Amino acid sequence: MFEIWRINVSSGELKREPLPDKYRYLGGRGITSSLVADEVPPTCDPLGPLNKLVLAPGLLGGTTAPSSGRLSAGAKSPLTGGIKEANGGGTAGHKLARLGIRALVFEGGFPDSGLYVIKITRDGVEFLPAGDLAGQTNYAVANTLRTIHGNHVAVVSVGPAGERGYANSTIAITNMEGAPSRHMARGGLGAVLASKGVKSIVIDDSGTKPIAVANPEEFHETVVEWTRKLVAAKRVLTELGTANLVLPMNSLGCLPTHNFRYGSFTNAEKVSGQELSRLIKQRGGKQGHACQPGCPIRCSNVYVDEQGEYITSGLEYETIGLLGPNCGLSSLDDIARLDRFCDEYGIDTMELGDTLAVCMEAGLLEFGDCEGVWKLVDEIKRNTVLGRTLGQGTAITGRVLGVRRVPVVKGQGISAYDPRALKGTGVTYATSPMGADHTAGNVLPGRGGFRPETRAGADPHKAQGQVEVSKDIQIMTAVCDITGQCFFVGANEEMVEYVARLLRALYGRALGKDDVLQLGRDVVRMEVSFNRSAGLSPAHDRLPEFFHSEPLPPYGLIFDVATEELHRFWEAM
Amino acid sequence: MFEIWRINVSSGELKREPLPDKYRYLGGRGITSSLVADEVPPTCDPLGPLNKLVLAPGLLGGTTAPSSGRLSAGAKSPLTGGIKEANGGGTAGHKLARLGIRALVFEGGFPDSGLYVIKITRDGVEFLPAGDLAGQTNYAVANTLRTIHGNHVAVVSVGPAGERGYANSTIAITNMEGAPSRHMARGGLGAVLASKGVKSIVIDDSGTKPIAVANPEEFHETVVEWTRKLVAAKRVLTELGTANLVLPMNSLGCLPTHNFRYGSFTNAEKVSGQELSRLIKQRGGKQGHACQPGCPIRCSNVYVDEQGEYITSGLEYETIGLLGPNCGLSSLDDIARLDRFCDEYGIDTMELGDTLAVCMEAGLLEFGDCEGVWKLVDEIKRNTVLGRTLGQGTAITGRVLGVRRVPVVKGQGISAYDPRALKGTGVTYATSPMGADHTAGNVLPGRGGFRPETRAGADPHKAQGQVEVSKDIQIMTAVCDITGQCFFVGANEEMVEYVARLLRALYGRALGKDDVLQLGRDVVRMEVSFNRSAGLSPAHDRLPEFFHSEPLPPYGLIFDVATEELHRFWEAM
Repeated sequence: MFEIWRINVSSGELKREPLPDKYRYLGGRGITSSLVADEVPPTCDPLGPLNKLVLAPGLLGGTTAPSSGRLSAGAKSPLTGGIKEANGGGTAGHKLARLGIRALVFEGGFPDSGLYVIKITRDGVEFLPAGDLAGQTNYAVANTLRTIHGNHVAVVSVGPAGERGYANSTIAITNMEGAPSRHMARGGLGAVLASKGVKSIVIDDSGTKPIAVANPEEFHETVVEWTRKLVAAKRVLTELGTANLVLPMNSLGCLPTHNFRYGSFTNAEKVSGQELSRLIKQRGGKQGHACQPGCPIRCSNVYVDEQGEYITSGLEYETIGLLGPNCGLSSLDDIARLDRFCDEYGIDTMELGDTLAVCMEAGLLEFGDCEGVWKLVDEIKRNTVLGRTLGQGTAITGRVLGVRRVPVVKGQGISAYDPRALKGTGVTYATSPMGADHTAGNVLPGRGGFRPETRAGADPHKAQGQVEVSKDIQIMTAVCDITGQCFFVGANEEMVEYVARLLRALYGRALGKDDVLQLGRDVVRMEVSFNRSAGLSPAHDRLPEFFHSEPLPPYGLIFDVATEELHRFWEAM
Repeated sequence: MFEIWRINVSSGELKREPLPDKYRYLGGRGITSSLVADEVPPTCDPLGPLNKLVLAPGLLGGTTAPSSGRLSAGAKSPLTGGIKEANGGGTAGHKLARLGIRALVFEGGFPDSGLYVIKITRDGVEFLPAGDLAGQTNYAVANTLRTIHGNHVAVVSVGPAGERGYANSTIAITNMEGAPSRHMARGGLGAVLASKGVKSIVIDDSGTKPIAVANPEEFHETVVEWTRKLVAAKRVLTELGTANLVLPMNSLGCLPTHNFRYGSFTNAEKVSGQELSRLIKQRGGKQGHACQPGCPIRCSNVYVDEQGEYITSGLEYETIGLLGPNCGLSSLDDIARLDRFCDEYGIDTMELGDTLAVCMEAGLLEFGDCEGVWKLVDEIKRNTVLGRTLGQGTAITGRVLGVRRVPVVKGQGISAYDPRALKGTGVTYATSPMGADHTAGNVLPGRGGFRPETRAGADPHKAQGQVEVSKDIQIMTAVCDITGQCFFVGANEEMVEYVARLLRALYGRALGKDDVLQLGRDVVRMEVSFNRSAGLSPAHDRLPEFFHSEPLPPYGLIFDVATEELHRFWEAM
C-alpha cells in the first residue's frame, strides 16, 4: 500500500517502490533516519551529491489520531555533521500520507537545469522550472504556488537561506491558512533540499481516499478518548501557547538571557505568554490556533500589529526566549517581526537567536540593541560575508568573532533552556544525536521516564538522576516523531499506551507498550551509530566549557552532570 | 640536570621541576605531546584556561649534532581540535637546551594584567609588561627586544594574528641575524600562546655551559661523519633551497594549482628554485643560508628586491606552491612580499595560501589577481569580519563562503602536494594526528620505510603500498621531531642509525635502532589516543570528497587509497 518515492534530481526520474517490510513500522523520523543510515555515506559532504533528503509523514499521518500530521525531514546535517531529523506541523504531512507516500527521497547532485518546483499528485511527479521563484522568500513562494495550483495544496519550500547553503536554514510548510509559517527548523535541512535543486514541493492529494484502518471502531474510540483527555490537560497551551513557559522558566532561572549569562530576565513579564495572549486578544489576532488539521491542543497563534495586520503565526517560546531575553530584547512586536523575517528567509529562529547573542558578546552590538539587530538582518538579506557567517550558525560565528562563550553542542545552538538550571534538558543537548535540540527530549520539571527508577523525574536544579530520565524521554520523544505526532501530546507513558492502541487498531497486529518503546529505542540507536561513523564520537557528547565553570544567576548553578557519564550515555540503552 | 619550567600565567609563578624519569628520552615533539596528553583535558577549549602551551628543544638540542636546534611548540590546536606540534629553526632551541630547560610550559588563563614579555635567563624568569609591543608585528617586536636585551638573545613572539585568536597564527623565532623569519607555523599555536598572555619570550643563555655528553669522542666522531655525508647529499637544497621541488613536483603533476584544480602550472619555471636562485644571486641576496646554528644543509635563503633591499628570509617550496600556483600567482616578488606579510603578522603561509585560493574558488576574486590578494590582506590587517574569517583558516572560510572544494583535513589546509599525484603524502594528510601537514611524513618519490616490505617505497601515482610507507615515514619523522633535528637530515634508516649512535654517546646507554623507532612510534600513538579522546575519531582520517571523485590533470588521477584502510590506519602500528 504505502510506497517510497525516490526522485533522482540529476536525471529527473521518479522511482516508486513498495514499502519494504523492514520499514513497515517506521514513519516520520523512523524512516527518515533509517533511509539516511542505510543509504548515505556517513562521512559525505552534507551538501554534496551523496547526501539524501528524505521527507516522511508519520505512522499515524493521514489518520484522525490527534496532532498526527507532522512532516519529518531527514538528512546528514550541514550544521552538526551528523544525522538530523526535524519535523513541523502544517498540512503537508497528512497529504503525503493520504497519497500513500511513506517517504519521499531526493537523491543525486544539483541538476544542470537549475532550481525547480516539484508537484506531487496521486499520478506521480512533475518537474517545473522554479523560474522567478528562485531567490524569493517563503510567503511569496507559497502565495504564487497556491495561486497557480489552488488553495487546497500544501506547499513545502526553502527560502533564500537554504538556496545559499546557510547551515541555519529551514524547510517551510504551509499551515491551514496557506502561510509558510511551520518550519522543519533545525540542522540546516533547507540547504540540503536546495542542494538537490528543489525550491519547493507542491503536494496535491486530490482524489485520494482515507487511510485504511484494520479496526476502525477501536481506532475511533481511542482517538475520541485521547482527544478528550488532551483538550482538558493542555488548556494552558491552548490559552497561552508555548509562551506559557516564559514565566515558569524565568522563575526556575533557566530563561537564557544575554547569551546565557543570566537565567532570568528583568522584563520577562513583557515577553510572557500572558502578555502575548493579552496583545493578541486586544488587537484581534488569534490564540488557540491549530497549526495542523486535527490538533486538539491548538498552541499556535496569529500575531498581528496594532492595526490588526498579520505579522506572523506561531510565535513560540523558544523564538521568544532566544531572540528576546537572550538578545536583551523585550518587545513582542520586535520579536514577532524577527520571527517573520526568519520565516520569510527560511532561517531557524533558535539558531539565529543564539548567533545574534554571540555577536553581542563579541561587541558587534549591545544587548538589547534592536536597531543593531536589524542591521545584522540586513547583512543576512544582502548575503555579505558577515551575513554568510551568521548564516553558518552560532558555532561558526563564535569562531570567526573569537568568542569563548558559545552555547552550542555538535555545532548547533542550544535551545531556550539554560542547561545549568534545567539539567535533564542539558543532558539531552549533550547526548542527543540531534545536537543541542530540546525537541529530542525536553526534560521539563515534573517529567519522568517509563521505568520505576525514572518515573518520578528529577529535580531540575540537581544532577542526580538526569541521565536516566533524559534517556527515557529521548526514547519516548522518538516514538512521537515516528508516529508523526507533535510531542505536545506528551512524551510520557500515557502517550506510549495510546500509540500502542492506535497502531494495534491501524494494523490489526498485537503491539504492546514495550514494542512501541523499542521502535523509539532502535531509531535513536541507529542515529547514534550513524553519528559515530560520521566522526561524532562520545567526546562530542558534552556541553561547552563555560556551562561547567560559570555559575548561573540567580541560583549560582553550574552544569555538574559528570562529563564521563555523558560520554558513556549511549553504551547502554 | 634537565628541568621542566612551568609558568603559571595567571599567578606569574615559575615552578622548576627536575625532568621526570618517564620523559628522559623525550625531547621536542616527544615531550610537548607527552605533557599535553598527560595534562590537558582532551575536550577543553583550545584557547581557554585548561589548555597548555609547551615549548621544547629536542633531545639533541644544544649539542653539535647537525641541524639539531629546532624548537617544538605543542598544545591542543584551535585549528584542528586535536593535539598539535609544530617546530621551527632559528636560535631559540639551542639556547633553551643550554639553559637546561627540556620543556617550558605555559599554564592557566589570560592574566588580568594583560599581555607581557617573558625573559628567561639561567637565573629564572622575569615578567615584563608588553606595553607598546601589544599589537605590533614580529619584526618590530624582535627589533625592539633585541635593542633592549642585546643581540645575543633569541626572541620568540606572536604577531597580531595570534593576539586576535586566529587559527592560522604562528609562533615566530628569530634566526641567526635576528629576523623573526622561522615559524612554528601550523595549527594556530600562536593563538594559544597569546591566550596565555604571552606576546614574546626573550631567551638569554649567557653564562651557560655546553651540554654534558657521556662519551664526547664518540659523539664528535659521529657528528663529523654524519655532517660530511649531509653536506654531500643535500647539495641541491643548499643550492636551490626547498624551492628545488617546484619543477619536479610540477612534472609529477602534484603542484597545487588554482585551488587544487590542476596538478601543474603553466608558469612553473617562473617560480622555480632555479629562478629563485638566479634572482637572489643577481640581486645580492643569499642562497645557502642556514636558519639555525650548526646546520650543514643551509636550505634557507635571503630574498631581496631589485634594489637589494631585504624582503624576507626562507622563501620555501610550500609557501611558493600555495601562495603562488595555487592562487595563480607567478611572480616570486609578489610571493616573497606575501611571505613577509605572513611573517610580520604571524600567519601560516600554507594555511593562507589555501584560504586565498578558496576565496578565488568562491568568486571573491580571480585566480592570479594579485591586487585582489592584497585587498584581502588588507581585510586581515584591519581585522574586519572577512579578515577574521580568513584568519580562522581554510575550512571556516570554505564554510562561510559556501565552497564545496575545500582542501582540508581535520580543519587544516593541505600542504603544497596534491594528494592525488603524491598518494603517500595524501595518506599522511588523512591519517596524521597533526592534520593535513606534510611535515608529519612527506612521502616524496623514492622515499621508503624501514621494513623489508616498505623499503623500496611506492609509485607516487599508485595507491598500492602507500599506507605502509606513510606509516613508517610518519614514525621516522617523529624521531627527528623528538631529537630537535630538521627532517631534512632524512626521515630514513640512516638517520635512525645516526640518532641511535648520538643518543648512545650522549647518554652513555645502549640504545639501538629499534629503541629509537619505538620512541617515534610511542609518541605518534599517544597523539592519536589524545585525538580520539578529543573527538577526532577514525572517521576524521580521510580526505575531502573531491579528491576521490575529481580527476587531476594532467594525469587524470584520483585519490584511490581505500578510505576504509585509512580509517583502520592506527589500529596496528
